[in-house]
Amino acid sequence: MTTQSIPVLWKNNTDKHYICKIIDISLRGCAQVMFQNNPITGLLFFIAIFISAYSNNNPLAAWGCVVGTVLASITGAITHDIKGWRDGLYSYNGCLVGIAIPVFITATPIMWLCLVVGSVVSVIATVCIADILKTWKVAALTAPFVLTTWVILLASYAFHNIYGSGLPSPDLPQHYIPSTQSSYSLSFFINSTLHGISQVFLFPGILASLFFIAGLAAESVVCACYAIVGSFIATLLACYLGANPHDIAAGLYAFSAVLTSVALGTVFNHPGWRVFIYTISGIIFTVFIQAAMNVLLMPLGIPTLTMPFVISSWLFLVPNKEFMPEHRH
Amino acid sequence: MTTQSIPVLWKNNTDKHYICKIIDISLRGCAQVMFQNNPITGLLFFIAIFISAYSNNNPLAAWGCVVGTVLASITGAITHDIKGWRDGLYSYNGCLVGIAIPVFITATPIMWLCLVVGSVVSVIATVCIADILKTWKVAALTAPFVLTTWVILLASYAFHNIYGSGLPSPDLPQHYIPSTQSSYSLSFFINSTLHGISQVFLFPGILASLFFIAGLAAESVVCACYAIVGSFIATLLACYLGANPHDIAAGLYAFSAVLTSVALGTVFNHPGWRVFIYTISGIIFTVFIQAAMNVLLMPLGIPTLTMPFVISSWLFLVPNKEFMPEHRH
Amino acid sequence: MTTQSIPVLWKNNTDKHYICKIIDISLRGCAQVMFQNNPITGLLFFIAIFISAYSNNNPLAAWGCVVGTVLASITGAITHDIKGWRDGLYSYNGCLVGIAIPVFITATPIMWLCLVVGSVVSVIATVCIADILKTWKVAALTAPFVLTTWVILLASYAFHNIYGSGLPSPDLPQHYIPSTQSSYSLSFFINSTLHGISQVFLFPGILASLFFIAGLAAESVVCACYAIVGSFIATLLACYLGANPHDIAAGLYAFSAVLTSVALGTVFNHPGWRVFIYTISGIIFTVFIQAAMNVLLMPLGIPTLTMPFVISSWLFLVPNKEFMPEHRH
Repeated sequence: MTTQSIPVLWKNNTDKHYICKIIDISLRGCAQVMFQNNPITGLLFFIAIFISAYSNNNPLAAWGCVVGTVLASITGAITHDIKGWRDGLYSYNGCLVGIAIPVFITATPIMWLCLVVGSVVSVIATVCIADILKTWKVAALTAPFVLTTWVILLASYAFHNIYGSGLPSPDLPQHYIPSTQSSYSLSFFINSTLHGISQVFLFPGILASLFFIAGLAAESVVCACYAIVGSFIATLLACYLGANPHDIAAGLYAFSAVLTSVALGTVFNHPGWRVFIYTISGIIFTVFIQAAMNVLLMPLGIPTLTMPFVISSWLFLVPNKEFMPEHRH
Repeated sequence: MTTQSIPVLWKNNTDKHYICKIIDISLRGCAQVMFQNNPITGLLFFIAIFISAYSNNNPLAAWGCVVGTVLASITGAITHDIKGWRDGLYSYNGCLVGIAIPVFITATPIMWLCLVVGSVVSVIATVCIADILKTWKVAALTAPFVLTTWVILLASYAFHNIYGSGLPSPDLPQHYIPSTQSSYSLSFFINSTLHGISQVFLFPGILASLFFIAGLAAESVVCACYAIVGSFIATLLACYLGANPHDIAAGLYAFSAVLTSVALGTVFNHPGWRVFIYTISGIIFTVFIQAAMNVLLMPLGIPTLTMPFVISSWLFLVPNKEFMPEHRH
Repeated sequence: MTTQSIPVLWKNNTDKHYICKIIDISLRGCAQVMFQNNPITGLLFFIAIFISAYSNNNPLAAWGCVVGTVLASITGAITHDIKGWRDGLYSYNGCLVGIAIPVFITATPIMWLCLVVGSVVSVIATVCIADILKTWKVAALTAPFVLTTWVILLASYAFHNIYGSGLPSPDLPQHYIPSTQSSYSLSFFINSTLHGISQVFLFPGILASLFFIAGLAAESVVCACYAIVGSFIATLLACYLGANPHDIAAGLYAFSAVLTSVALGTVFNHPGWRVFIYTISGIIFTVFIQAAMNVLLMPLGIPTLTMPFVISSWLFLVPNKEFMPEHRH
């Protein structure tokens, strides 16, 4: 048996056995969070998620991620878009819901109910939003995850039996004034850049970040570079504009920019100089949208999740047809 | 003259006399709040509205409802959609505006100005939103009512001469903690379920609720069953998740679910097992959206009205084309 | 050389020299804030902007306006819509961004960075929003300006180095109660009406207002009349409903209505009785939306900018195809 035959063997199994098919779709679904249609990338991403969840003392987030991804993969069978389903396009939102619910909601049986409801509804929301957006030929991105999770997190305030332990306290916005003079070192920038990449999956982490980069590189080295560049530029800009250094260090100003960078730079356009400049503009404005949404959601006590990436990417992708010579999707 | 001839006689009159036509459209408009195109249903609904408005010490709401419905029916003549106009599709939002304004705004001459402006604009909003949504083949539902009323209720804070007496005080969200241990009896569930049905028209009430159910049953018994089931499941879920028992008892967690249940279960799909399961999912998520919107609007001091139903139904109706074998509209 | 030949000479120059072309586009862009495609109007508007900025002790706003307009005119070249670009349709949002940033953000080098980012992104937002809205045949209006500026103003709360000096303090809404009995004189109404017109460009001012009216009249006298009528009716209604007299006097309840009046009355419809009544309805509801948005944005501490006009005009323009016999655009 040669190395070449492993993918072939796997493909044969996924066609024959339902469980293998769901595993394959779940792995691809996890990889699709960063736009990759590759089970190896998904496997590396899952390893990274387990590393970061366990090292941040929240192992349930990793197991929730598995449950959410698998449930969404099973629910995805209700669509008629068989190709999209098998490529994991109906699973990646469930993957993120599965991490987010245990991160923000205290572990109780009702937390698991929320996770199940969120994963299943994320599939319906994906079909709904994709259908709406096809009018303008843009993708749903992670909007179904964000909207579904926001509903559950907001609802947690009204329900006594759902306790949002990880949520910020609702407050009126105030101009941010740093308590101490902050000095930024090179290691600060490198660490923040790496945390920004793993923060896409809701946890900071250096080792996890390297696995995420490896997963991206397994499918496309250019993609991995764009992720790093996006995170680095966003970190730099957030420091220059005077954002909260703790948030910068945790990668909270960079994770949306990572996704914008990969989306605009490699997924929906052919790489090139014109696209590179357009992508840099997108990264810069993503940092502004990230800060704006942090403030916008302050009175509600919920996090932005990846919405700044979604809005920024829609903003820069809709006119794309006109600006860019060629399209991929 | 046989019984059969009364509808025929009525039809002849509505074609000949303008006033009869407007009365017919207004009755159908009131019935269309719950998707029924039937003047008998409308008459039973109006009786229910008068019962609940008078028994809740707000008779103006019933008269405002009549004024709003009739004004919207007259204004509806500006559309080219003659069939939709005669079926009451441009009147039901005015019907709800006519109840909501006296419920939330103190009775003054300017309250009536708001009611007139709201009813007329609700027709324009209906044409606007229906035109936008036909891109995805979904109906405007009660979105025109909600948006028009929200504008007037928000504006009441800025205008000294419009006093929003029935509005909740704007506040930052806090996690709900019950003051006393609550025990739920069977009569609590039955009463809450009934209040949920009449709360669609903004008042709790047992007797009114029976008239609403009778009105639905006059056109379709299945429809009436779906309304009851929707209200009951929503009440049960809200109790399980630990919502405020006073709000549950007033039907405030059930009224949106009643509309979602009727819409998904009978109006826009042919009843069946697949549709039944899909409808239950819709009811469950409507309860989450209801709680989420309660929290979302807390800092603004305005009620959700039927927006949770609208959002939930759009979410479950847009992908419908793909999920469901057949469509009605 | 006759007077007639000046436009011809100018046209020849704008075709040959890049700088003349950008100047022409920038002048038209400034005029397009009020829907006029005329460089003379733009020149009069720029004079008015300099008068009002200097008389309100904020000269940077006038210079920022020039920079924003020119930058947007240059960036606009990326679209394929050459005609729209030359008509200033990609410049007017940059013109308003260029005024708004110095009005609300303290003058620092980073303020200029925000102004540059805002102007450039306003062009991308214009292409994006225009593309989305062409589905329903309505224009982007000033939505790109409002959304881009809101992002930067909200972000200012999160960034220490961007200080929003001119922003209202975030607060929960409260019912407005006037401190003293206010008496309205004729001069109050005249002044408020004029301030309402110049407030479209974010400053009150009588002399500036006269220049704006002259600029409108240079292209269309009917247009100038609609601007005055819109401002006057909005002022009257705001007084009647009991709005804050200081805000009315500064034209803050009238500027959105000015734009609604011009848009509905002359730009997107052929003037006539039916259109006149429809426009009056639009003006009345714009005042309600203005008050509603003031309250809506209170917890966030940002101004409405021209969003009430945008929402009101979309509401009244989408159904237009059905209501109005003929269309201009």
